[in-house]
Amino acid sequence: MPRALENKRRQGGRAARKARRAEGLSVEMRAVRPGLPGGRYKPLSEPDVQRIHHAALELLERVGMAEVPQIVTDKALSLGCTLNDRGRLCFPAAFVEDVIDGAARNFTLYGRDPRHDIEIGEERVYYGTGGAAVKVLDLETSEHRPSTLRDLYDFARLVDRLDNVCWFTRCVIATDIEDVVDLDINTAYAIAAGTQKHVGMSFVSGETVAPVVKMFDTVLGSEGGFRKRPFCKAHISPVVSPMRYGEDAVSVMLAAIDHGMPINSIIGAQSGATAPAPLAGMLVQSLAETLAGLVLVNLFAPGYPVIFSNWPFVIDLRTGAFSGAGGETAVLNAAAAQMANHYDLPGGVSASMADSKIPDVQAGFEKGVTTLATGLAGGNMIYESAGMFASLMVASFEGFIIDDEMLNVVQRVIRGIEVNDETIGLDVIEEVVNGPGHFLGHDQTIAAMERDYVYPDLGDRDSPDAWLEAGSTDMWQRARLRVREILGEPGPAYISLEADRKIRERFNILLPVKAVRG
Amino acid sequence: MPRALENKRRQGGRAARKARRAEGLSVEMRAVRPGLPGGRYKPLSEPDVQRIHHAALELLERVGMAEVPQIVTDKALSLGCTLNDRGRLCFPAAFVEDVIDGAARNFTLYGRDPRHDIEIGEERVYYGTGGAAVKVLDLETSEHRPSTLRDLYDFARLVDRLDNVCWFTRCVIATDIEDVVDLDINTAYAIAAGTQKHVGMSFVSGETVAPVVKMFDTVLGSEGGFRKRPFCKAHISPVVSPMRYGEDAVSVMLAAIDHGMPINSIIGAQSGATAPAPLAGMLVQSLAETLAGLVLVNLFAPGYPVIFSNWPFVIDLRTGAFSGAGGETAVLNAAAAQMANHYDLPGGVSASMADSKIPDVQAGFEKGVTTLATGLAGGNMIYESAGMFASLMVASFEGFIIDDEMLNVVQRVIRGIEVNDETIGLDVIEEVVNGPGHFLGHDQTIAAMERDYVYPDLGDRDSPDAWLEAGSTDMWQRARLRVREILGEPGPAYISLEADRKIRERFNILLPVKAVRG
Repeated sequence: MPRALENKRRQGGRAARKARRAEGLSVEMRAVRPGLPGGRYKPLSEPDVQRIHHAALELLERVGMAEVPQIVTDKALSLGCTLNDRGRLCFPAAFVEDVIDGAARNFTLYGRDPRHDIEIGEERVYYGTGGAAVKVLDLETSEHRPSTLRDLYDFARLVDRLDNVCWFTRCVIATDIEDVVDLDINTAYAIAAGTQKHVGMSFVSGETVAPVVKMFDTVLGSEGGFRKRPFCKAHISPVVSPMRYGEDAVSVMLAAIDHGMPINSIIGAQSGATAPAPLAGMLVQSLAETLAGLVLVNLFAPGYPVIFSNWPFVIDLRTGAFSGAGGETAVLNAAAAQMANHYDLPGGVSASMADSKIPDVQAGFEKGVTTLATGLAGGNMIYESAGMFASLMVASFEGFIIDDEMLNVVQRVIRGIEVNDETIGLDVIEEVVNGPGHFLGHDQTIAAMERDYVYPDLGDRDSPDAWLEAGSTDMWQRARLRVREILGEPGPAYISLEADRKIRERFNILLPVKAVRG
Repeated sequence: MPRALENKRRQGGRAARKARRAEGLSVEMRAVRPGLPGGRYKPLSEPDVQRIHHAALELLERVGMAEVPQIVTDKALSLGCTLNDRGRLCFPAAFVEDVIDGAARNFTLYGRDPRHDIEIGEERVYYGTGGAAVKVLDLETSEHRPSTLRDLYDFARLVDRLDNVCWFTRCVIATDIEDVVDLDINTAYAIAAGTQKHVGMSFVSGETVAPVVKMFDTVLGSEGGFRKRPFCKAHISPVVSPMRYGEDAVSVMLAAIDHGMPINSIIGAQSGATAPAPLAGMLVQSLAETLAGLVLVNLFAPGYPVIFSNWPFVIDLRTGAFSGAGGETAVLNAAAAQMANHYDLPGGVSASMADSKIPDVQAGFEKGVTTLATGLAGGNMIYESAGMFASLMVASFEGFIIDDEMLNVVQRVIRGIEVNDETIGLDVIEEVVNGPGHFLGHDQTIAAMERDYVYPDLGDRDSPDAWLEAGSTDMWQRARLRVREILGEPGPAYISLEADRKIRERFNILLPVKAVRG
């Protein structure tokens, strides 16, 4: 092997990778990074996009929405919407198209640390978490058990360390908290303590938004600080499928708008249950409902930052149970991403929701297929992208590590192939063909080595013999060691001592001080 | 649950699925089937396709090929090709374009049983096997061991039972055979005994083609039968990268043409080793070499059935070892498929080559990503698509079962979404929204249930509790049981007693009679 490459090889070794992790390898030096443009996969033809669009508009204009809070009805009617003969609120197609035109397109989802800011828009692809699992795959016993507040905090600080998981939505419910207000408060505290990435959470009602924002201001050490860099978005489910508004979500939405908190407006219609089973009908209704959510926010705050989250969920029609991992889920969410890009709206979709209960080969291909399909289709914010198993019922620490590694591979596909005179390099080919006959030591190869290629960290590329000698481990085992390494470190102390004291004086914080401060 | 759906549910149960397997569920009844059109994912822009194409032509015209057998040089020069000042054989761009225009486009790869015929062409996607592994993941010990002739036969009869693996290339080398002629003869026998699907193999030299065809005629019970329905293709590697012809492959090619045996002309250039490391350059050289292979066959037999197999292989530049599973492999093979479709040639690519040594979560996502990328890009013949691990060094029985199941999911994505008035069904949505509020019992749902949805066989979709009660297995374990079930059955006796006797009289067949006849 040529000397130059040998040096490179040494730099590429396990110890070097560990050192680079410790230093934090700069984003620019990596062969892949979050925010690469997708969109090269178009599940729908252009005429089909138009048909889906017009059918969704027709549904909103003809069938409309039921269970509309009075405040919404009043506002909508004043702007030219109508009630049909069943009393349902209907939106004229032109009205909906105006809302789409006036909606927020490119905006920043702030991290507490600016290097975690996410500039969403166009076809840039970011993966992050979602979910509200009620169980955890225990790191020590490998058994499922109820998820706790401590788990939530540990998941937050784990995600804080992962290159490809760009934000942290509370992925598990702290099932050890009974009081619903305590739950919101402590969820907010745990995620703010664990990560400086952009975060997201849901709220039991609009009333807990104000105290949470107050807490976040204290975390930031500045009254009104959250409004300047709102680092948390509110997840709302504005629609109860089929085609009804949800009253609680409206109250959370209004409170979020009041505090400048961005909104992730999520539709989770279920094929064959709360929406049609044929995929086209499923997509039409789900899109109409997502537009109804967009209308809702824009009625009260035109141009307000909203993620247009259309997550077409699939039901296993043999059992009626939700399934997150099939080809139907992949193609529906990819199509949902395509429709959002058609509108040039920041689209949210879902992927990587394994049905398997553990990180086995089933989980691997389930995650690979849905994650790649949605990324290639240009999903802007791909939720549930890490750690989720058992059709969203279980979160796994090892799963987060594994998925982060998988996202390196997936993002390498999304990056694609740069074609220009230099990357084609006909002269180099001619030189090598007429010369040494191999490219291994060529300057061009050395230059491409880190720039164009992703190398696995926990992924095994050893020879069968070397793998056997190293203990013949599977990736689940290797990920477990890595999780222990990270969670064994002291807490990141992302909340200052002073802020922590103030927060604990004011709120019923259930996570012990020692948990978050080492 | 509505009665109609309950009945459906019962029909969907494990016992029913088993029964349907036994009956052989008709292809038309399945939600997915091999041969679905791909092409919705285009890794390269149209201008980039043109640049890659013209750069490849320039390479063939300017740099050309070395180590050209005299018979090839004579033929090429007589048709207007030239030797450059280094004595390399160069093909004018117009000549290569004429070869592309005149090459075989749509043809049939025959199975012994016509229901296994593959009509290749356009953007229809078929997955099948490839490889020449030298080790097997032992079914009983889960350890790697050298592969044998018996393994090859067992792999053949396993693939014979898999819906989504459309042909059988000898995936392992019978390392227990020393004599190279015996190896070809016994390879041919084992695959013909194990499956009635289309098969593929390589030959140590052109001289073993004739006896193998003779054996196949005996299997078919008719002199000249093979020429009428050539159920085996010859895998040749006509080029030694970079840009040299391989003499042995030319002799096999000529013998194959002589016997009407279709040819799979495979280029396996290695990025950063035998081809450039930058992906664009890699693709250009690899494409030029694949065209050089096409030219070779068409020089001697214009329009002869050739698979245009461009398998861009990736080297881990830290170690110099082949890696089959990264994002670079996925996007390069997808681009190779796109280029073949650009030419409207039957393209072969490679996917599903896990680097992992076992069917773990790493293998799962490695296979999922490469298999989906190449399928969505419209690869016609996707090789290595089942059972391969350890960067093609190890084949696994359980892996075949798992990959077949994964292909159901992948093919569901490829199938996409049919958009028309019926599948949109605005009237049904309106009826349900204004009526019962759920779609579960609707006729539309019942109709879509088997038509539009794929249900896993070994894939687990149980609740966490039900999964625990059922033994908390992973998919590898479940696949193992299934393999034992299939391989525990008597051999399929695809070679008649009389033919078998004749073959054993004439050839040194090393597989015992009792192995193939129960």
